[in-house]
Amino acid sequence: MSTEKTLFHLDDPAGGIPRVLAEGLTTTVFPGDQAMLSVVRLAPNAEGTRHSHPEEQWGVLLEGSAARYQGDEVFEVGPGHFWRTPGGVEHTVKAGPEGAVILDVFAPVREAYLKPGEGFGES
Amino acid sequence: MSTEKTLFHLDDPAGGIPRVLAEGLTTTVFPGDQAMLSVVRLAPNAEGTRHSHPEEQWGVLLEGSAARYQGDEVFEVGPGHFWRTPGGVEHTVKAGPEGAVILDVFAPVREAYLKPGEGFGES
Repeated sequence: MSTEKTLFHLDDPAGGIPRVLAEGLTTTVFPGDQAMLSVVRLAPNAEGTRHSHPEEQWGVLLEGSAARYQGDEVFEVGPGHFWRTPGGVEHTVKAGPEGAVILDVFAPVREAYLKPGEGFGES
Repeated sequence: MSTEKTLFHLDDPAGGIPRVLAEGLTTTVFPGDQAMLSVVRLAPNAEGTRHSHPEEQWGVLLEGSAARYQGDEVFEVGPGHFWRTPGGVEHTVKAGPEGAVILDVFAPVREAYLKPGEGFGES
Protein backbone atom coordinates (compact mmCIF):
# COMPACT_ATOMS: atom_id res chain seq x y z
CA MET A 1 0.00 0.00 0.00
CA SER A 2 1.32 3.39 -0.96
CA THR A 3 1.94 5.82 1.86
CA GLU A 4 1.77 8.73 -0.58
CA LYS A 5 -0.82 11.28 0.48
CA THR A 6 -3.98 10.96 -1.60
CA LEU A 7 -6.56 12.87 0.51
CA PHE A 8 -6.64 16.67 0.48
CA HIS A 9 -9.00 19.56 1.23
CA LEU A 10 -9.75 22.65 -0.85
CA ASP A 11 -9.22 24.86 2.22
CA ASP A 12 -5.95 23.24 3.31
CA PRO A 13 -2.66 23.72 1.43
CA ALA A 14 -1.19 20.55 2.97
CA GLY A 15 0.21 18.33 0.26
CA GLY A 16 0.23 21.11 -2.33
CA ILE A 17 2.79 23.40 -3.94
CA PRO A 18 2.34 27.17 -3.47
CA ARG A 19 2.42 29.53 -6.45
CA VAL A 20 1.74 33.23 -6.89
CA LEU A 21 0.19 33.61 -10.34
CA ALA A 22 -0.20 37.38 -10.31
CA GLU A 23 -1.02 40.15 -7.85
CA GLY A 24 -4.05 38.92 -5.91
CA LEU A 25 -4.01 35.45 -7.55
CA THR A 26 -2.49 32.69 -5.49
CA THR A 27 -2.80 28.97 -5.94
CA THR A 28 -1.93 25.66 -4.38
CA VAL A 29 -0.98 23.00 -6.92
CA PHE A 30 -1.59 19.26 -6.43
CA PRO A 31 0.22 17.21 -9.05
CA GLY A 32 -0.62 13.67 -10.08
CA ASP A 33 0.78 11.44 -12.80
CA GLN A 34 -1.69 12.34 -15.57
CA ALA A 35 -3.41 15.46 -14.26
CA MET A 36 -2.79 18.33 -11.87
CA LEU A 37 -5.28 20.24 -9.73
CA SER A 38 -4.80 23.90 -8.79
CA VAL A 39 -6.93 25.65 -6.16
CA VAL A 40 -6.82 29.31 -7.15
CA ARG A 41 -7.86 32.13 -4.82
CA LEU A 42 -8.54 35.49 -6.43
CA ALA A 43 -8.78 38.75 -4.52
CA PRO A 44 -11.64 41.09 -5.46
CA ASN A 45 -11.20 42.33 -9.04
CA ALA A 46 -7.81 40.63 -9.38
CA GLU A 47 -6.90 39.49 -12.86
CA GLY A 48 -4.33 37.26 -14.48
CA THR A 49 -2.28 37.85 -17.60
CA ARG A 50 -3.35 36.37 -20.91
CA HIS A 51 -1.36 33.22 -21.69
CA SER A 52 -1.61 29.77 -23.23
CA HIS A 53 -0.04 26.35 -22.82
CA PRO A 54 -0.31 23.05 -24.66
CA GLU A 55 -2.05 21.27 -21.78
CA GLU A 56 -5.86 21.08 -21.69
CA GLN A 57 -7.36 23.02 -18.81
CA TRP A 58 -10.71 22.85 -17.06
CA GLY A 59 -11.88 25.40 -14.48
CA VAL A 60 -14.68 25.15 -11.91
CA LEU A 61 -15.95 28.29 -10.19
CA LEU A 62 -16.42 27.27 -6.54
CA GLU A 63 -17.02 30.62 -4.85
CA GLY A 64 -17.58 34.22 -5.91
CA SER A 65 -17.73 35.33 -9.51
CA ALA A 66 -15.42 36.01 -12.40
CA ALA A 67 -15.12 36.83 -16.06
CA ARG A 68 -13.40 34.10 -18.05
CA TYR A 69 -11.65 35.15 -21.23
CA GLN A 70 -10.56 32.57 -23.74
CA GLY A 71 -9.93 32.95 -27.42
CA ASP A 72 -12.39 35.58 -28.64
CA GLU A 73 -14.97 34.79 -25.97
CA VAL A 74 -15.76 36.06 -22.51
CA PHE A 75 -18.01 34.23 -20.06
CA GLU A 76 -19.45 35.69 -16.88
CA VAL A 77 -19.28 32.80 -14.40
CA GLY A 78 -20.71 32.13 -10.96
CA PRO A 79 -20.71 29.20 -8.53
CA GLY A 80 -21.13 25.89 -10.33
CA HIS A 81 -20.03 27.08 -13.74
CA PHE A 82 -17.21 25.13 -15.29
CA TRP A 83 -15.41 25.44 -18.59
CA ARG A 84 -12.93 23.73 -20.82
CA THR A 85 -9.93 25.46 -22.34
CA PRO A 86 -8.35 23.38 -25.09
CA GLY A 87 -4.56 23.33 -25.27
CA GLY A 88 -3.09 26.32 -27.08
CA VAL A 89 -6.06 28.64 -26.55
CA GLU A 90 -5.15 31.96 -24.95
CA HIS A 91 -7.02 32.69 -21.74
CA THR A 92 -7.16 34.66 -18.54
CA VAL A 93 -9.59 35.41 -15.72
CA LYS A 94 -10.72 38.46 -13.77
CA ALA A 95 -12.42 38.10 -10.40
CA GLY A 96 -15.66 39.84 -9.56
CA PRO A 97 -16.01 42.37 -6.74
CA GLU A 98 -16.16 39.68 -4.04
CA GLY A 99 -13.22 37.68 -5.37
CA ALA A 100 -13.39 34.04 -6.38
CA VAL A 101 -12.14 30.53 -5.75
CA ILE A 102 -11.53 28.44 -8.85
CA LEU A 103 -10.49 24.81 -9.12
CA ASP A 104 -8.35 24.34 -12.22
CA VAL A 105 -7.48 20.99 -13.74
CA PHE A 106 -4.56 20.51 -16.12
CA ALA A 107 -3.99 17.40 -18.24
CA PRO A 108 -1.34 16.37 -18.75
CA VAL A 109 0.64 17.80 -15.83
CA ARG A 110 2.09 21.29 -16.33
CA GLU A 111 5.77 20.79 -15.65
CA ALA A 112 6.29 24.50 -14.85
CA TYR A 113 3.97 24.17 -11.87
CA LEU A 114 5.81 21.27 -10.23
CA LYS A 115 7.85 23.57 -8.04
CA PRO A 116 6.91 26.65 -6.02
CA GLY A 117 7.18 29.85 -7.99
CA GLU A 118 5.54 32.86 -9.57
CA GLY A 119 3.69 33.47 -12.80
CA PHE A 120 1.79 31.38 -15.32
CA GLY A 121 4.76 29.38 -16.62
CA GLU A 122 6.87 29.70 -19.70
CA SER A 123 4.51 29.61 -22.63
CA MET B 1 -13.02 30.58 -33.28
CA SER B 2 -14.46 27.24 -32.26
CA THR B 3 -18.19 27.05 -31.80
CA GLU B 4 -17.78 23.95 -29.64
CA LYS B 5 -19.45 24.40 -26.28
CA THR B 6 -16.90 25.13 -23.58
CA LEU B 7 -19.08 26.55 -20.75
CA PHE B 8 -21.11 24.24 -18.53
CA HIS B 9 -22.76 24.15 -15.11
CA LEU B 10 -22.60 21.47 -12.42
CA ASP B 11 -26.40 21.55 -12.09
CA ASP B 12 -27.12 21.39 -15.81
CA PRO B 13 -26.61 18.23 -17.90
CA ALA B 14 -26.45 20.26 -21.13
CA GLY B 15 -23.37 19.33 -23.10
CA GLY B 16 -22.78 16.15 -21.13
CA ILE B 17 -23.29 12.42 -21.63
CA PRO B 18 -25.63 10.61 -19.22
CA ARG B 19 -24.51 7.41 -17.47
CA VAL B 20 -26.05 5.24 -14.74
CA LEU B 21 -23.10 3.90 -12.75
CA ALA B 22 -25.10 1.80 -10.29
CA GLU B 23 -28.41 1.92 -8.45
CA GLY B 24 -28.63 5.43 -7.01
CA LEU B 25 -25.44 6.61 -8.74
CA THR B 26 -25.93 8.68 -11.86
CA THR B 27 -23.47 10.90 -13.65
CA THR B 28 -23.12 13.35 -16.48
CA VAL B 29 -19.83 13.05 -18.36
CA PHE B 30 -18.06 15.97 -20.05
CA PRO B 31 -15.21 14.76 -22.26
CA GLY B 32 -12.27 16.81 -23.41
CA ASP B 33 -9.17 15.89 -25.37
CA GLN B 34 -6.87 15.11 -22.42
CA ALA B 35 -9.25 14.87 -19.49
CA MET B 36 -12.89 14.10 -18.73
CA LEU B 37 -15.11 15.50 -15.99
CA SER B 38 -17.95 13.51 -14.45
CA VAL B 39 -20.56 15.07 -12.17
CA VAL B 40 -21.78 12.19 -10.02
CA ARG B 41 -24.98 12.33 -7.96
CA LEU B 42 -25.35 9.70 -5.25
CA ALA B 43 -28.62 8.90 -3.52
CA PRO B 44 -28.50 8.49 0.28
CA ASN B 45 -26.36 5.46 1.20
CA ALA B 46 -25.93 4.46 -2.45
CA GLU B 47 -22.70 2.69 -3.28
CA GLY B 48 -20.73 1.74 -6.34
CA THR B 49 -19.01 -1.50 -7.17
CA ARG B 50 -15.28 -1.89 -6.62
CA HIS B 51 -13.38 -1.44 -9.89
CA SER B 52 -10.19 -0.06 -11.40
CA HIS B 53 -9.00 1.44 -14.67
CA PRO B 54 -5.67 2.59 -16.03
CA GLU B 55 -6.63 6.28 -16.08
CA GLU B 56 -5.77 8.51 -13.14
CA GLN B 57 -8.81 9.76 -11.27
CA TRP B 58 -9.39 12.69 -8.93
CA GLY B 59 -12.59 13.21 -6.95
CA VAL B 60 -13.91 16.35 -5.26
CA LEU B 61 -16.76 16.08 -2.72
CA LEU B 62 -19.03 19.02 -3.51
CA GLU B 63 -22.10 18.23 -1.39
CA GLY B 64 -23.07 15.71 1.27
CA SER B 65 -20.73 13.07 2.61
CA ALA B 66 -19.28 9.74 1.58
CA ALA B 67 -16.84 7.01 2.38
CA ARG B 68 -14.12 6.66 -0.24
CA TYR B 69 -12.51 3.23 -0.54
CA GLN B 70 -9.32 2.82 -2.50
CA GLY B 71 -6.68 0.14 -2.19
CA ASP B 72 -6.58 -0.84 1.49
CA GLU B 73 -7.74 2.56 2.69
CA VAL B 74 -11.06 4.18 3.49
CA PHE B 75 -11.53 7.93 3.89
CA GLU B 76 -14.59 9.62 5.37
CA VAL B 77 -15.06 12.71 3.20
CA GLY B 78 -17.16 15.86 3.42
CA PRO B 79 -17.52 19.05 1.40
CA GLY B 80 -14.17 20.32 0.13
CA HIS B 81 -12.31 17.04 0.47
CA PHE B 82 -10.62 15.83 -2.68
CA TRP B 83 -8.51 12.80 -3.43
CA ARG B 84 -6.33 11.22 -6.05
CA THR B 85 -6.72 7.65 -7.25
CA PRO B 86 -3.71 6.52 -9.27
CA GLY B 87 -4.38 4.38 -12.33
CA GLY B 88 -4.87 0.71 -11.53
CA VAL B 89 -5.90 1.20 -7.89
CA GLU B 90 -9.22 -0.46 -7.01
CA HIS B 91 -11.78 1.94 -5.60
CA THR B 92 -15.42 2.59 -4.89
CA VAL B 93 -17.57 5.06 -2.96
CA LYS B 94 -20.55 4.89 -0.62
CA ALA B 95 -22.70 7.95 0.01
CA GLY B 96 -23.60 9.13 3.49
CA PRO B 97 -27.19 9.35 4.76
CA GLU B 98 -27.88 12.62 2.91
CA GLY B 99 -26.36 11.50 -0.39
CA ALA B 100 -23.53 13.27 -2.14
CA VAL B 101 -22.41 15.13 -5.24
CA ILE B 102 -18.89 14.34 -6.42
CA LEU B 103 -16.92 15.85 -9.28
CA ASP B 104 -14.64 13.22 -10.78
CA VAL B 105 -11.78 13.96 -13.14
CA PHE B 106 -10.24 11.31 -15.39
CA ALA B 107 -6.96 11.72 -17.28
CA PRO B 108 -6.58 10.62 -19.92
CA VAL B 109 -10.15 10.33 -21.18
CA ARG B 110 -11.98 7.09 -20.28
CA GLU B 111 -13.06 5.77 -23.65
CA ALA B 112 -15.84 3.66 -22.10
CA TYR B 113 -17.57 6.83 -20.89
CA LEU B 114 -17.72 8.53 -24.28
CA LYS B 115 -21.20 7.23 -24.98
CA PRO B 116 -24.31 6.98 -22.81
CA GLY B 117 -24.50 3.74 -20.88
CA GLU B 118 -24.51 1.89 -17.61
CA GLY B 119 -21.83 0.68 -15.25
CA PHE B 120 -18.22 1.57 -14.51
CA GLY B 121 -16.72 0.47 -17.82
CA GLU B 122 -14.91 -2.64 -18.86
CA SER B 123 -11.97 -2.97 -16.51
